Amino acid sequence: MAFTPLLADLLAALRCLPGVGPKSSQRMAFHLLERDREGAKRLATALVAALDGVGQCSVCRMFAETHVCPTCADPRRDPASVCVVETPADVIAIEESGSFRGRYFVLMGRLSPLDGIGPEELGVPLLLKILGEGAVRELILATSATVEGEATAAWLATLARDAGVRPTRIAHGVPMGGELEYVDAGTLSHAIAARTAIGGDQAA
Amino acid sequence: MAFTPLLADLLAALRCLPGVGPKSSQRMAFHLLERDREGAKRLATALVAALDGVGQCSVCRMFAETHVCPTCADPRRDPASVCVVETPADVIAIEESGSFRGRYFVLMGRLSPLDGIGPEELGVPLLLKILGEGAVRELILATSATVEGEATAAWLATLARDAGVRPTRIAHGVPMGGELEYVDAGTLSHAIAARTAIGGDQAA
Repeated sequence: MAFTPLLADLLAALRCLPGVGPKSSQRMAFHLLERDREGAKRLATALVAALDGVGQCSVCRMFAETHVCPTCADPRRDPASVCVVETPADVIAIEESGSFRGRYFVLMGRLSPLDGIGPEELGVPLLLKILGEGAVRELILATSATVEGEATAAWLATLARDAGVRPTRIAHGVPMGGELEYVDAGTLSHAIAARTAIGGDQAA
Repeated sequence: MAFTPLLADLLAALRCLPGVGPKSSQRMAFHLLERDREGAKRLATALVAALDGVGQCSVCRMFAETHVCPTCADPRRDPASVCVVETPADVIAIEESGSFRGRYFVLMGRLSPLDGIGPEELGVPLLLKILGEGAVRELILATSATVEGEATAAWLATLARDAGVRPTRIAHGVPMGGELEYVDAGTLSHAIAARTAIGGDQAA
């Protein structure tokens, strides 16, 4: 049975959501039409409003509804320490951990020349401008622990050093509460190589 | 970190989708805003268009964009045989199996007096009107094999008999290709009780 045109359009449109395939798009569309027409209306309105109103912070490139995002505008955040992450979701995750009181810089991706993602796309000129202003003392590189993430971190570390800013990298190793038995070999060998002296001093 | 207002609205709105919780709604919102603004726009438009244009067929209660749905309007579909299902998704599933050439009737739920779902909500007056017109000879009860589904089927069977229509129930048993070892006890005991003589005659 072919779906009627409007229903087929809705199914196709729902599939732009990550993790939504033919089966879930059908389940979502039918749920909305059968049981939650109010919710569907609210979703359409929220999408239009967000597309219209959510842009990027002109300082850190985080999602923002104002020219400067609340974090960058907050005078209690330490401007001497900038944490570089790949995505807005990373900012949310670090904020939820409550372990960082500095500023952020969101790359919105990672270095990937084959996909045409270079310094411009990652906002590196903007980052260099911030580093050049002299307030930043430490650049914490919190890109992901993948090949591209590591390459991005290594490259940004060079740029930071050239600008007279100390680059640091977040620690990698066995997750807290993780049983050694279930940790993958790559993480484990890194955790052994990067072991620290008991007493707190970093071995490296 | 609190989300900015428009983003918070979008996250809340996305959670009206079935199976979408806080984590997935964030993933979806960020994906749309970072990488697929076109798709988000299309989704908003498709939602509004579907809410506006998709109603129910006046004959079978299936989703339809016209007064009578394509299946009910199709003269090649056998009007003597009506298959009663709980949801539009069931119609799609049966159509995909290609095993039925009659008409449908969609209850949009199942009998559940505690939730206030009675004959009116299930469109039973409309079904009785169709049965009363005399063209229907068999009412295939394809409600689900749950307690409520069975109760609904038993009740509709009585109504059908009163209207002089033969009620039938879809077969339940071990799924095709299913290994006995992995079939649940309820299905297995039903499959043994409802065994058929080899040669094709139903034991019951």
